[in-house]
Amino acid sequence: MADFLTLFAPLDMHLHLRDDGMLRAVGPASAADFAGAVIMPNLVPPVDSLAAMRAYRDRIEAATADYDFTPFMTLFFRDYSDAELAAARDEIIGIKLYPAGVTTNSEAGVKEISGYDRQLSAMQELDIPLLVHGESHGFVLDREQEFLAVYRTLAKRYPRLRIVMEHITTAAAAALLDEFENLYATVTLHHLIITLNDVAGGLLQPHLFCKPIAKRPEDRDALLAAALGAHPKLMFGSDSAPHPRSKKEACGCAAGVFSAPTAVPLLADLFDRNGALASLQAFIGDNARHIYRLPEQDKTVRLVRKPQTLIAEFADLVVFGGGETIAWSVEGA
Amino acid sequence: MADFLTLFAPLDMHLHLRDDGMLRAVGPASAADFAGAVIMPNLVPPVDSLAAMRAYRDRIEAATADYDFTPFMTLFFRDYSDAELAAARDEIIGIKLYPAGVTTNSEAGVKEISGYDRQLSAMQELDIPLLVHGESHGFVLDREQEFLAVYRTLAKRYPRLRIVMEHITTAAAAALLDEFENLYATVTLHHLIITLNDVAGGLLQPHLFCKPIAKRPEDRDALLAAALGAHPKLMFGSDSAPHPRSKKEACGCAAGVFSAPTAVPLLADLFDRNGALASLQAFIGDNARHIYRLPEQDKTVRLVRKPQTLIAEFADLVVFGGGETIAWSVEGA
Repeated sequence: MADFLTLFAPLDMHLHLRDDGMLRAVGPASAADFAGAVIMPNLVPPVDSLAAMRAYRDRIEAATADYDFTPFMTLFFRDYSDAELAAARDEIIGIKLYPAGVTTNSEAGVKEISGYDRQLSAMQELDIPLLVHGESHGFVLDREQEFLAVYRTLAKRYPRLRIVMEHITTAAAAALLDEFENLYATVTLHHLIITLNDVAGGLLQPHLFCKPIAKRPEDRDALLAAALGAHPKLMFGSDSAPHPRSKKEACGCAAGVFSAPTAVPLLADLFDRNGALASLQAFIGDNARHIYRLPEQDKTVRLVRKPQTLIAEFADLVVFGGGETIAWSVEGA
Repeated sequence: MADFLTLFAPLDMHLHLRDDGMLRAVGPASAADFAGAVIMPNLVPPVDSLAAMRAYRDRIEAATADYDFTPFMTLFFRDYSDAELAAARDEIIGIKLYPAGVTTNSEAGVKEISGYDRQLSAMQELDIPLLVHGESHGFVLDREQEFLAVYRTLAKRYPRLRIVMEHITTAAAAALLDEFENLYATVTLHHLIITLNDVAGGLLQPHLFCKPIAKRPEDRDALLAAALGAHPKLMFGSDSAPHPRSKKEACGCAAGVFSAPTAVPLLADLFDRNGALASLQAFIGDNARHIYRLPEQDKTVRLVRKPQTLIAEFADLVVFGGGETIAWSVEGA
């Protein structure tokens, strides 16, 4: 039984760092344990120009200056010119699509997206990955499944475009990884652990409420099996999404689970309990480095088998797994 | 188009009035618009003796003394002696079963309940209805469906026992009404209107969180069709369940929707919008009077087609439908 585990350049491939005071609060939590992260562009207003992206990157670098941490930047999907795409290409890791026009009718969704053929073709030619929040506007439990038809259409129409299904939550989405060569996925920590039962089976737990919402046990089990089996097309992306407590414990609770401070030790504990510690390196870094063709980074994070009770609060934020006692700790944390 | 509607002795066949200060606050809201209600016995400690039931009834009568309102009392299911059942019979409307021992395995549930054969046989002989919170301990969306096997077994084993499936939420439970003569059901107002999408499809809405949790659109539609069609075995039961705001907008939100102050006008509006005003009297009173063989009551509640914006707060409670403008008002309210 291993008592130490060294992770080489762990990556969080889906992260919300927000901005300003919140960025300064949560940035260090991710930067301490990760070598880099894919930064979501959904600020208000969204990060949808090279200038806005560079300014945001500067603010992130300032907030994480004490750490060896690389923010991999994204742009918010809109109708970019070929020149804009070419100019952005070397400074972004991908473009993030929130399909606002997609309805329960996935055909309509495809049509909506097919209006962007010029841009998607250009992204394919420039080798800019497309990151997708893949949900329809249908019934909350069906949204991801209804969106799979859009993924299929995109994957077929742009066979050289790397398409990342972000924060997948269903067995059906995981199965799609094996159907199309150019489809990849991120999965969160919490979707490997919780189901809708944890959110709403007892008292309602606003701090476990997120989008896409946690699904059925068989979905969670399929995602966990893929992660523990080091599926080469599946990457860790925390989707850590901080909201102040006043926005969570409220009439109209914002969606998002905040897991940045606890993700790495919780993942080690989860993989260890399932006898799959050997798969963690692939899941938390190597797969992503391969899929996104990222340069090597020499940061290491050392975990030790030392019980710890996870912090429950971080600034004004309730932390995923907080209060739990687990077997692994990040050394020096 | 009718501009007035007189309801004769409307009944709420599933109501939580709580106790003490909360009872004094919410009791009048139900007593104003209803001629009577079936009072749930799940106080702490539960109402599980004739003496406790009588004392609780006295407190309810004191809290609703200004109104023509009859509390139909229930006892909390436990192992009652035949003498206790015989003594209670004329003062209770039924015994409410919360199947704490029922697991995801509905067979185990049946076995658990079959340990009460003597009592259930005695209830059948004494003609005391059995009111059931019919959920397994399984995955939150499957609990009612998993429990249906228990209903089937009970209905077959005690063919003269009137069994009421409380607050049904699924199309499958509604269908069971037509399968067994001795199965009846209550349904809430909110389960005729909302689905899980309203609870968790946008921002999470703690004030719409209840048990059993709201289900799929096709479930809601089946329940609504049965209510609008005046299904003779389906009764209105609000399951109005007040929790102070601090217990709802919280880390660990209590289950319950508070609809007592708005239920009658909202039902009139709902039935009217669906062209089924003529079915409301059956749903909100006549069916229950027939099923439970209740004496006639001469209270009437008169509704007028007069737009109103429903109150959003009642004491410290957030009210179902609050803030909505609807076409019907209770006259004099």
